Amino acid sequence: MKLATLKDGSRDGVLVVVDRKLHVCRRVPAISPTLQFALDHWATVAPQLQAVYDALNADPADGDTFIESNCHSPLPRAYQWADGSAYLNHVELVRKARHAEVPASLYTDPLMYQGGSDAFVGPWDPIYALDAAWGIDFEAEVAVITGDVPMGADGATGAAAIRLLMLVNDVSLRNLIPNELAKGFGFFQSKAASAFAPVAVTPDEVAAAWRDSKLCLPLHVSLNTIPFGKPNAGDDMTFNFARLVAHAARTRELAAGTIIGSGTVSNRQGNLHGSSIGHGGVGYCCLAELRMLETIEKGGATTPFLNFGDNVRIEMFDEDGASIFGAIDQDVVRYDAAGVEDGRPIGARL
Amino acid sequence: MKLATLKDGSRDGVLVVVDRKLHVCRRVPAISPTLQFALDHWATVAPQLQAVYDALNADPADGDTFIESNCHSPLPRAYQWADGSAYLNHVELVRKARHAEVPASLYTDPLMYQGGSDAFVGPWDPIYALDAAWGIDFEAEVAVITGDVPMGADGATGAAAIRLLMLVNDVSLRNLIPNELAKGFGFFQSKAASAFAPVAVTPDEVAAAWRDSKLCLPLHVSLNTIPFGKPNAGDDMTFNFARLVAHAARTRELAAGTIIGSGTVSNRQGNLHGSSIGHGGVGYCCLAELRMLETIEKGGATTPFLNFGDNVRIEMFDEDGASIFGAIDQDVVRYDAAGVEDGRPIGARL
Repeated sequence: MKLATLKDGSRDGVLVVVDRKLHVCRRVPAISPTLQFALDHWATVAPQLQAVYDALNADPADGDTFIESNCHSPLPRAYQWADGSAYLNHVELVRKARHAEVPASLYTDPLMYQGGSDAFVGPWDPIYALDAAWGIDFEAEVAVITGDVPMGADGATGAAAIRLLMLVNDVSLRNLIPNELAKGFGFFQSKAASAFAPVAVTPDEVAAAWRDSKLCLPLHVSLNTIPFGKPNAGDDMTFNFARLVAHAARTRELAAGTIIGSGTVSNRQGNLHGSSIGHGGVGYCCLAELRMLETIEKGGATTPFLNFGDNVRIEMFDEDGASIFGAIDQDVVRYDAAGVEDGRPIGARL
Repeated sequence: MKLATLKDGSRDGVLVVVDRKLHVCRRVPAISPTLQFALDHWATVAPQLQAVYDALNADPADGDTFIESNCHSPLPRAYQWADGSAYLNHVELVRKARHAEVPASLYTDPLMYQGGSDAFVGPWDPIYALDAAWGIDFEAEVAVITGDVPMGADGATGAAAIRLLMLVNDVSLRNLIPNELAKGFGFFQSKAASAFAPVAVTPDEVAAAWRDSKLCLPLHVSLNTIPFGKPNAGDDMTFNFARLVAHAARTRELAAGTIIGSGTVSNRQGNLHGSSIGHGGVGYCCLAELRMLETIEKGGATTPFLNFGDNVRIEMFDEDGASIFGAIDQDVVRYDAAGVEDGRPIGARL
């Protein structure tokens, strides 16, 4: 089934069931007011939502028009957002651009950071920043939402705990990263608020493409309407989601509603020339990767990071070309703190 | 006023107003079912809670008996837990034990990591671990809960956003830290579930001791009932809470219910001999600090980390010797995943 959260001015929005084609939706207040509530009571709530989903697909005329731009992220705020870095091609390029070794542990021990999850923005909300000099970059990723996971769970338990799949734009502030990581405590200021595609889907919706806890479809990214990346999220993923969930659960329980990200999707390619979409490659899911190739081959990066006014669009299509999750479509906009008069997180505003 | 969350088997527990002396409490379902709800609607809810608090103090016989061990952490799960490291004596000792330099930026740019907040445990719940070889350590800290904070907030805005004060035991798995920090993405597996003292209090409750966004009182720690630390949380705090909140808000909004921690409370002292409570010092708020002094002065640490069966108690008293927040009182217990039959976070169980 497919689920989304409509903005209604509240912090958590309102849960809707969306039909398979993303044309119509239905509110389900008698079943579950929010997606977090559904995740908290999944065993009893999911079958009821599934029944609504089946009815909606059978009779779409019975639904309200579904408008992606009215959506918040499926979980407007979450109790946990843990982002892996499972596509090691991305990590290897970073190191190569720095002339640094890739430690052997990277191939056996997943990288994962704890991200901020108190105030995501909606999929069509702006990327807000105060200063373009922060080095604003998108990172297109796949993410899963889990149920409860016991401490010490193995991969099979991790796989069984995956409730929903999503797409995410994990916005990074590249120019703040070196100093912050040098302090040794990981990312904090160098990560802006993330946005998730409008619709979260159960794995059975992508049954043919969900193999070995990987989503084996191209992830499409456009920059200012020009195709920029379409790597296959099932390729070159060293650690699958089952493994990433188990990694997160090694020393503590994960509570229902935990979001685990894949890290920037990245496929191994040849040289700079052949890797761009314009030259027959699959392109990139972040600007940094292109800049690393430029650095390796040309001695310096020439592609700039995002500036105010730039647009990023992230979407994934099924074998028939239909959008699975709806699109993330974000402009970069200067944040105006003067608009915070009501103290409500900016993503919750209408 | 003073607020707590009683366990009722649910994930969020039930909010109660507690009298100043921590003797009695009252449920307030008509005002606010949970602490998160109160924080989400603070402007309207706080005055109503204050009225209940005033009535309860005037007529304590009108309340239910308040039992600390029935409490969950005030926020059993939170949308954000960001922990600073504001007591640089602690950081300096770590570096000295390693013969490493302390970078100048540490004195101007706060250290802060994003912590897991999906499933805290209660103040009297065990510290759960699968393996004592993880190097289990307590870290006694002060923490604040904020309201909504705009991106780019300054210190004054940060100070004004502080709603509640708490104590926290930020459990660290010391033997997992070196490998994890070497990976560059900060703490993840090396932090176990944190526990917070039963009662969260508004700053006016400690008006005489809440100065310059610091809580100027000793933080008492006992290990297996023997006094282990009592440093003053107002001393040697290089970055106050106003500054820590502003640091967290530099590049993104903070949503109501964000918890910001001080880092392990630590006072500058002389040598190993004179710093222990038994020899007239103020002792330590974590085992690692004592082990660092042992390493510096004796060439190696002799005090072990926690083992199964050990007990840690953390508490703070007002000028009259009355407990302000109630106590964190935790035994170290081996986690049993077989008990997770209902899939509910362990802290929510009764």
